[in-house]
Amino acid sequence: MEHAKLAEINYLIEEGEFYTLKDVLKELEPAELVEIIQEQEEKEQLIIFRLLPTKLAARTFEYLDFETQEYFINTLNNDKIAAILNEMSPDDRTALLEYLPNRVVKELIAILSETERKVTLELLGYPESSVGRLVTPEYVAIKEDMTVEEVIDHIRAFGRDSETISVLYVVDEKGILTDDIRLREVILAPKGTVVRDLIDHKFVALHAMQDQEEAVEIFRKNDRNALPVLDEEGLLFGIVTIDDMLSVREEEDTEDIQKLGGSEALEEPYLTIPLLEMVKKRAGWLVILLLGEMLTASAMGFFEDEIAKAVVLTLFIPLIISSGGNTGSQATTLIIRAMAIGEVYLSDWWRVMRRELILGLMLGVILGVIGFLRILIWAKFMDSYGPHWLGIAYTVGFSLVGVVLWGSLAGSMLPILLKKLKLDPATSSAPFVATLVDVTGLVIYFSFAFFFLRGTLL
Amino acid sequence: MEHAKLAEINYLIEEGEFYTLKDVLKELEPAELVEIIQEQEEKEQLIIFRLLPTKLAARTFEYLDFETQEYFINTLNNDKIAAILNEMSPDDRTALLEYLPNRVVKELIAILSETERKVTLELLGYPESSVGRLVTPEYVAIKEDMTVEEVIDHIRAFGRDSETISVLYVVDEKGILTDDIRLREVILAPKGTVVRDLIDHKFVALHAMQDQEEAVEIFRKNDRNALPVLDEEGLLFGIVTIDDMLSVREEEDTEDIQKLGGSEALEEPYLTIPLLEMVKKRAGWLVILLLGEMLTASAMGFFEDEIAKAVVLTLFIPLIISSGGNTGSQATTLIIRAMAIGEVYLSDWWRVMRRELILGLMLGVILGVIGFLRILIWAKFMDSYGPHWLGIAYTVGFSLVGVVLWGSLAGSMLPILLKKLKLDPATSSAPFVATLVDVTGLVIYFSFAFFFLRGTLL
Repeated sequence: MEHAKLAEINYLIEEGEFYTLKDVLKELEPAELVEIIQEQEEKEQLIIFRLLPTKLAARTFEYLDFETQEYFINTLNNDKIAAILNEMSPDDRTALLEYLPNRVVKELIAILSETERKVTLELLGYPESSVGRLVTPEYVAIKEDMTVEEVIDHIRAFGRDSETISVLYVVDEKGILTDDIRLREVILAPKGTVVRDLIDHKFVALHAMQDQEEAVEIFRKNDRNALPVLDEEGLLFGIVTIDDMLSVREEEDTEDIQKLGGSEALEEPYLTIPLLEMVKKRAGWLVILLLGEMLTASAMGFFEDEIAKAVVLTLFIPLIISSGGNTGSQATTLIIRAMAIGEVYLSDWWRVMRRELILGLMLGVILGVIGFLRILIWAKFMDSYGPHWLGIAYTVGFSLVGVVLWGSLAGSMLPILLKKLKLDPATSSAPFVATLVDVTGLVIYFSFAFFFLRGTLL
Repeated sequence: MEHAKLAEINYLIEEGEFYTLKDVLKELEPAELVEIIQEQEEKEQLIIFRLLPTKLAARTFEYLDFETQEYFINTLNNDKIAAILNEMSPDDRTALLEYLPNRVVKELIAILSETERKVTLELLGYPESSVGRLVTPEYVAIKEDMTVEEVIDHIRAFGRDSETISVLYVVDEKGILTDDIRLREVILAPKGTVVRDLIDHKFVALHAMQDQEEAVEIFRKNDRNALPVLDEEGLLFGIVTIDDMLSVREEEDTEDIQKLGGSEALEEPYLTIPLLEMVKKRAGWLVILLLGEMLTASAMGFFEDEIAKAVVLTLFIPLIISSGGNTGSQATTLIIRAMAIGEVYLSDWWRVMRRELILGLMLGVILGVIGFLRILIWAKFMDSYGPHWLGIAYTVGFSLVGVVLWGSLAGSMLPILLKKLKLDPATSSAPFVATLVDVTGLVIYFSFAFFFLRGTLL
């Protein structure tokens, strides 16, 4: 969107030159219009939107965010809204209805045309994460006994509203799907060929109740831009197009990332989720983690006498436990993502464990040596840590090897264990690992302290 | 894949009934064949693959993972490999060549047909994250003065190898793209219509040197299954299809997640990346974090006298700093993801800060009250923490409010600051925040301790 165009539009709105503005707007693409609208104040948004021809208004409306859509719905008159809703593609319309409060949804459904209403109500009956929610019923169905010319005439007559016609769906008299066929195969076939001779009754289909996450994987494995969706009775219910999979993938990754960060999935944009809702999503894990970390206070209470004798030991506690925590969350994150994208399966647990054993040891040695040298240098040149600095250096060095090794192991095995128990690994791994490794890190640290400092400091 | 089919195939291999096996295999879909092949040992994989007709072999080959592809390339004879490589779609072939060692790539390029070789070499000239790498040159180009019947005949004659013909590309004599048009518009147009009358010279195009991440966004904004790609001179270079965007999105999210987990992006599957490579990717941040955490040892050294006087204070150090760290990484993760999917922009920093101030305070109060009660209960019923337990309870309670508030603020602002400085927020935020909040958490804790315990414990 060039600035010149935007400046021109702002000028026309200011001057009230709406006829000229209308001509300028109708030449623009929906994506450009969305950008322009989102730059404006509410009043100006409405002016622009009212001037658009219905079809263009509907296509632009589909790309606006839910907030702006809701604002328009609350402001425009019923006829305009009905026209736009009826023009919208069914899957985008369902997504909007999902977002709006129930009261508004009821009103909106009432103003839809009968066909569109039926479709929408049907679409709304499926669980939120099911394939049924992504379905668009606008596809082209053909019969086995049609010739390729008849198919093309059929598309010309009935295909105007189909979201995709690159694939055609062959159904029998009962509406049972018998095959799908690419339009290119029909076009590339010699004239006079009958559909029956082009098909092989092999097709991939989704089920309306299936999870969207599974659908993404099926799309990835099969090189299709759209897949047919069957209902409970095996009848062709509609199709799902691949562009919806891009959003599904993105939403799922967002949920996983938010869970890995230690909150529940927000399920709403960061800036618009109500504050109390956000507190609910974020406080839960923080409180559980706090309760878990209270175990560290108990663990340290157990070593209180030792600490009183050798206060210098406390200096390295944050360093030791955070190194364990960092290693643990690193390993957890890598394994959870590897499982999410199908690189690691439950049956690989032994390979993972072997790798993390070796890796944890190597990483631990690297960190341990650095920790050891740090204390050695400070002791030599700054005379910190008193006469028993060497024992302290050994304690810190070996503890680092221990917590890093333990962090890698615990961090990599816990998600696998949770998945085995049919729990969502993303939800709980990172926090559990952090607490587990913190508490055990203290035990590892004080054990090495006993070993190296018994009889001197302790 | 039903077990019965798999069992049948295993039986046929064991019995050496290769003629029957061949008949069974040729009826299967590539996705099924991939599943079957990946269930087998290497020798059996080869047997199955050798029995497939060339076209089916090529389509199946495209879906195999790089390792298996490499194994087949090293094992099969040159004629078979050449046939398969020439049948593969150019973008999949480029991805494979990318993966293989240079020596093998040279040999393979040599056995390609001249046209395929030219295409592959061209594709390999673009940076790894550029749109050029996803391009397939198999599209249908048409001229403005063709009629719709001529277009359909043209597709029938030349379209057999095009990856998608749902969109056609209108070029002038010099090969400059003047518009794109959906096949459906051509088919739906009345007979005799000329292409010129169907187009409006408005189209969206990608550039070969453009970043793939930008391409995903452009696909999301424009409702297309394929977009044309222009080279440096504006000539039509090829097309990119939306199914490639699904992988791009997934790879980018994987990188972000791995970075948020505190390692570099692995860029290879977890189970196959060489161990030394993995150590390199993981050790870097762990070492930097360790060096950062050494500041906590310095900070605590500063309070050593206080600790010696009141050892009981050390018991709550892990709890305080980990609560700050958890809050910080929670806020960081939410903001980084919100920026990645375009929910939060740099210009929103003030709104984010206002939200996190309020949220941090609310979360801090929740955690502070719990921490306060924990000490109160232990002191009353278990007689821990000595006579000054109330001062300690206040110290812990207020410190939790402080570190949680500070964690939310620092965690949310740092990614925004990093992005403002044109650095990748995902790479460095989580580790930086953790260290920052740990060190400052100690200062906050001991400051409250001074305030509440001065004259009693301290």
